[in-house]
Amino acid sequence: MPATTTDGSRPQRARLGVAVIGAGYWGPNLIRNFAGLGTVDLRWVCDRDVDRARGALVGRSGVRVTDSIDDVLNDPAVGAVAIATPAATHAPIARRCLDAGRHVLSEKPLACSTLDGEALVELADRRDLVLMCDHTYCYSTAVQYLHDLIASGEAGDLQYLDSVRINLGIVQPDVDVFWDLGPHDLSILDYILPADCRPVSVAAQSADPLGVGRACIGYVTLQLANGAIAHLHLNWLSPTKARTLVTSGSRLMAVWDDLAPAQRISVYDRGASLGAGDDRSSRHAALVSYRLGDMRAPALEDREALATMVTEFVDAIGSGRAPLTDGRSGVRILRLLEAIPDSLALGGAAVLLDDRAAPHRDQVETVVQNGRER
Amino acid sequence: MPATTTDGSRPQRARLGVAVIGAGYWGPNLIRNFAGLGTVDLRWVCDRDVDRARGALVGRSGVRVTDSIDDVLNDPAVGAVAIATPAATHAPIARRCLDAGRHVLSEKPLACSTLDGEALVELADRRDLVLMCDHTYCYSTAVQYLHDLIASGEAGDLQYLDSVRINLGIVQPDVDVFWDLGPHDLSILDYILPADCRPVSVAAQSADPLGVGRACIGYVTLQLANGAIAHLHLNWLSPTKARTLVTSGSRLMAVWDDLAPAQRISVYDRGASLGAGDDRSSRHAALVSYRLGDMRAPALEDREALATMVTEFVDAIGSGRAPLTDGRSGVRILRLLEAIPDSLALGGAAVLLDDRAAPHRDQVETVVQNGRER
Amino acid sequence: MPATTTDGSRPQRARLGVAVIGAGYWGPNLIRNFAGLGTVDLRWVCDRDVDRARGALVGRSGVRVTDSIDDVLNDPAVGAVAIATPAATHAPIARRCLDAGRHVLSEKPLACSTLDGEALVELADRRDLVLMCDHTYCYSTAVQYLHDLIASGEAGDLQYLDSVRINLGIVQPDVDVFWDLGPHDLSILDYILPADCRPVSVAAQSADPLGVGRACIGYVTLQLANGAIAHLHLNWLSPTKARTLVTSGSRLMAVWDDLAPAQRISVYDRGASLGAGDDRSSRHAALVSYRLGDMRAPALEDREALATMVTEFVDAIGSGRAPLTDGRSGVRILRLLEAIPDSLALGGAAVLLDDRAAPHRDQVETVVQNGRER
Amino acid sequence: MPATTTDGSRPQRARLGVAVIGAGYWGPNLIRNFAGLGTVDLRWVCDRDVDRARGALVGRSGVRVTDSIDDVLNDPAVGAVAIATPAATHAPIARRCLDAGRHVLSEKPLACSTLDGEALVELADRRDLVLMCDHTYCYSTAVQYLHDLIASGEAGDLQYLDSVRINLGIVQPDVDVFWDLGPHDLSILDYILPADCRPVSVAAQSADPLGVGRACIGYVTLQLANGAIAHLHLNWLSPTKARTLVTSGSRLMAVWDDLAPAQRISVYDRGASLGAGDDRSSRHAALVSYRLGDMRAPALEDREALATMVTEFVDAIGSGRAPLTDGRSGVRILRLLEAIPDSLALGGAAVLLDDRAAPHRDQVETVVQNGRER
Repeated sequence: MPATTTDGSRPQRARLGVAVIGAGYWGPNLIRNFAGLGTVDLRWVCDRDVDRARGALVGRSGVRVTDSIDDVLNDPAVGAVAIATPAATHAPIARRCLDAGRHVLSEKPLACSTLDGEALVELADRRDLVLMCDHTYCYSTAVQYLHDLIASGEAGDLQYLDSVRINLGIVQPDVDVFWDLGPHDLSILDYILPADCRPVSVAAQSADPLGVGRACIGYVTLQLANGAIAHLHLNWLSPTKARTLVTSGSRLMAVWDDLAPAQRISVYDRGASLGAGDDRSSRHAALVSYRLGDMRAPALEDREALATMVTEFVDAIGSGRAPLTDGRSGVRILRLLEAIPDSLALGGAAVLLDDRAAPHRDQVETVVQNGRER
Repeated sequence: MPATTTDGSRPQRARLGVAVIGAGYWGPNLIRNFAGLGTVDLRWVCDRDVDRARGALVGRSGVRVTDSIDDVLNDPAVGAVAIATPAATHAPIARRCLDAGRHVLSEKPLACSTLDGEALVELADRRDLVLMCDHTYCYSTAVQYLHDLIASGEAGDLQYLDSVRINLGIVQPDVDVFWDLGPHDLSILDYILPADCRPVSVAAQSADPLGVGRACIGYVTLQLANGAIAHLHLNWLSPTKARTLVTSGSRLMAVWDDLAPAQRISVYDRGASLGAGDDRSSRHAALVSYRLGDMRAPALEDREALATMVTEFVDAIGSGRAPLTDGRSGVRILRLLEAIPDSLALGGAAVLLDDRAAPHRDQVETVVQNGRER
Repeated sequence: MPATTTDGSRPQRARLGVAVIGAGYWGPNLIRNFAGLGTVDLRWVCDRDVDRARGALVGRSGVRVTDSIDDVLNDPAVGAVAIATPAATHAPIARRCLDAGRHVLSEKPLACSTLDGEALVELADRRDLVLMCDHTYCYSTAVQYLHDLIASGEAGDLQYLDSVRINLGIVQPDVDVFWDLGPHDLSILDYILPADCRPVSVAAQSADPLGVGRACIGYVTLQLANGAIAHLHLNWLSPTKARTLVTSGSRLMAVWDDLAPAQRISVYDRGASLGAGDDRSSRHAALVSYRLGDMRAPALEDREALATMVTEFVDAIGSGRAPLTDGRSGVRILRLLEAIPDSLALGGAAVLLDDRAAPHRDQVETVVQNGRER
Repeated sequence: MPATTTDGSRPQRARLGVAVIGAGYWGPNLIRNFAGLGTVDLRWVCDRDVDRARGALVGRSGVRVTDSIDDVLNDPAVGAVAIATPAATHAPIARRCLDAGRHVLSEKPLACSTLDGEALVELADRRDLVLMCDHTYCYSTAVQYLHDLIASGEAGDLQYLDSVRINLGIVQPDVDVFWDLGPHDLSILDYILPADCRPVSVAAQSADPLGVGRACIGYVTLQLANGAIAHLHLNWLSPTKARTLVTSGSRLMAVWDDLAPAQRISVYDRGASLGAGDDRSSRHAALVSYRLGDMRAPALEDREALATMVTEFVDAIGSGRAPLTDGRSGVRILRLLEAIPDSLALGGAAVLLDDRAAPHRDQVETVVQNGRER
């Protein structure tokens, strides 16, 4: 892969050549952040609408514009491609780029199905290329703080996570509320949940009170391996806007409110613990009392998550390691998203994920099945 | 029923004689409110612990204290009994009182099972007595405002209701979080939902991350007859306290925040509506845009819900009509509560309520059944 | 003083006999708290309206009721008197009680003038009696936390204090907004300000936009001895209610919001500091940058300030020491309150307190006395 | 003035030629907004630092860059100049532009002294040119809503205004907190106060607890002609950030919270009114009771104030009328700012504005000038 080869004697050539495909809603943010990285040479912006591509450059010089992905892939100096096109095109474009030996950063979702996502992961592995998902929230200082709180053991055993992501918004024409808003929360959970707390089942409820043919309101429940629970409220029809995540551990409980710039994270030193009665045998009858403790709101550095994300992409390429939100995390999220309609079809019954992960699965295996002649 | 007979020539005897049974947590509030009613003669406070009964009177004179329900029922001047004893005793005590020809006000829940509740309703009907549930929240000015907003048609078609009732509290020794906190929300919904929006199914998810043997965190989803959805979040382990209900209609959306005394109800004149495109045939592809409008926070009268509730009880007795929150509403709530463990046993699948209401039901009928060999 | 004599052999008689004079708005709270103290024998409630006195007892036995202060003072078992009568009567009643050899707890204000207050202090000193002001806020856990934050040096050098005490309320018929609301804030400042930060001058602005003949809106500025500033906003006409105090030190800044039960105190580890430039000579040109740090909200014990206050009164009597909010603090507050109309008469110019404290002051001395011919 | 001449037959030339002088903090915002106006031909950006000027253009074509004001003024197609240079240079640059027959938009403050500001006004009048101050806040939808609420009479008689503009910020090297933050609030008041509520006096208090040689904390009180009061709290050292303005009228009270995007304006239908007692003679003894009413939060259009401001500038030029925030309003604000140090020198005594406005004023006239021998 000449594109990523570095040559000590010619430091200019050492910079990673990058192309951004898609200059719509998200592309300009990628352009701005790649352009801000000294270690990268932003070479192309590709969009079906060349004028839009040019507009996204706001006068930056030295970046070429095209409506052809071939132009991008024919440039040997391009080592990595960032994809910010409509969701249905992510996987096909990623495949072309990987086939052409380029590292790939894909906007969420990685693909429209788990199978397609797995194929991309396999292809990237075979070609020894970086495949990364742009799960931007995972690179925010707030989510990284939550991650560390759990990973360090400070928070104690996880008890529950409750996420609310609601607002009065536009009903998307092509996806339902689960695919529109869910990837944000699912990627955050995928990042902060430790290995022993992975989701084992997915249950969902939804409503389409406008009769538009897709869910506008969705609730998702994940049972976690350690007995904890995670719950999402996703809603396009809410009069109020909220972006909160409660992460409750046996020692610390954290509330993340992404709309409260002055107090984004509040960590409560409160916990529920079993009564200290001497009758240890009657555990089930024990009362639980709560401890009151101090709250702290850590000062979080004010930096853009997207800048950290593109840096991670470039670093992963440079060191040949998997990035934090690699293709595998993208596949795990697809697996969760695909389980949702299965649960809905079962009246909201929890769908086991283990069965779904099995390689040759003929049919949807669920915790409940059949007998659905209503 | 001499107790409720009124005699125009002797107006003093016209006052309804009342007894309160149970002087624990809730009883003193009933005592205070009945004592404050000029139309009532509070005659007895009955509690196993006579000292507690006396203490609950805080020096009020003219009220007798006893530990025997017989004393109460042997007093012909007692026309009505209010029950505020532990939950398991509500139904047996109510039955004794109804059998003895007394009107009954019962703390929630009305009984521990739908069958027991139905038997009480039938008994009260047969004896032509008032049987009322103390669903206090329904008598708050906030809930009455919400009720009127819906009943008048102002709010438009209901789209969804989302309730959050969470705090860091004591894990109850005898009931789970559904039976502890759920009756509040379910009785509120029972009151404000119009006849064409009644729940048709119940689904639930729960967690017991402390391993205390009962749910400490619960999520309940009700599918409503008109296609809308209602969702409850009930939680004993939350670091923050919340008491909110969003009631979203096609015209108005209301947020009730019971912990915001200065702005308890916010009514948003915002709605989501189908795009006004001319292509009416492609309804499913239609985008929904939102309208922005004013918000208003009505000034709510500052009166105690419990005072309104006891007044309703006395008025219903006086006029021989069913009270707002009669025994039937209590039974409807029991039916919802009883469906929760059935749904949990099915992995969270929605349990149809119609089947449950059938008179001779041998087994739990659900939207999904069997095949549960996990 | 037989009333406070303790007799080891007859422990029952060791309890301090207490009388409460005034059973209106505040008296019942004093009655409840004295009655809750095991070390005290509440003997009398005295009010012009004997029925009101009786009502305030809500059935407590063993407490006598009277409309005559003589009855109270003729009871040798009464060692201490708490006064909760209208403001104008505080000083005369306190004088009678002190003259009769009783310890005195007075509701704020201690008197209607500094001179009257000083006379009470002198009388109490001469008779070796405790004279205490019921500055209840000083005994709240929040204010005690603020006090300790400053006294321990943790907060650093004080920079400014800003208090807002506003609401939509009743315009008092006898006092202006300064005398109605000001004593709360002034007593809090008197308690938490260290000796080197005492007020040196008082300035005030006011408005009477309703034309009722007294200030309904008031602003008070205190220049403190160390160069810091304290400012009060007092307002009867505000659409919103606020009870906040910002206490800003060079190391820590604390915000007390008395209406936020879940986060009453927030301590910010932020400070402003002079630029670290080496050019120390150009100090005035130095930029100040701010440091960002964590915030913490300490868990405050949930106890009633009034209970702590009456305990302090009884303890001070028992140990013969001055209470925390003694008569001298009451006089200091009167001195501040009396300076307000003087400043108003001067268009809001700051009035020096040192001069005011001088015994024979002929005229108002202000900081602007001289050199006004610019 | 050829620059503003319009020629119907050559519509291209009808567009107003505009130059922006100063490309530092504020200039780029002006550039972006003028460039967005179809009716304007943005021709020059002028800055001492030509690279900065070029950077501010972010690739916009057809705009020339220079470090010489002469280049700008020698271009006959330039009809109007917007000045966003350091404060001390506003007046000299504005004078050059007016002398050269160009309309002028000046960033606040208009000048560093009232005299300089008045000279500019006079010059613009003489040359029949538009002189406008960029008081951006006055063009926000929130302030315009407040203005209309008062101007329409809906709010009733003004009672008080209370503004808080505080944050933890950088201590400016050249101005104190009054000149840094005060112009925002003073220009808002100048815009929304009706003619009969103009300020009649200014009083101020300040502190410099860091010893940096200028006020970091400031309080300003304006007595208004109708007996109402306006008060500003300006603060560079606050741990919390606030941008609120309470505007209280006899009928409506409005709270503007510029940091609450979802509820920027709250209008309370509460008022204080004199008691309805029949004894009109005893007005001063009357109690005031408050009425409780609904609150409403109007939906405010989401548009940029700056865009409205530049449109107003262009419209005023086109129609030959005075703009909303003309030079005269700039002078009124300078007059208020200049009174602040005078009041500070007098210990905070109110300084009368009428006297200050007199042409030949020898000395500071204050409300407390006479009659101080009380």
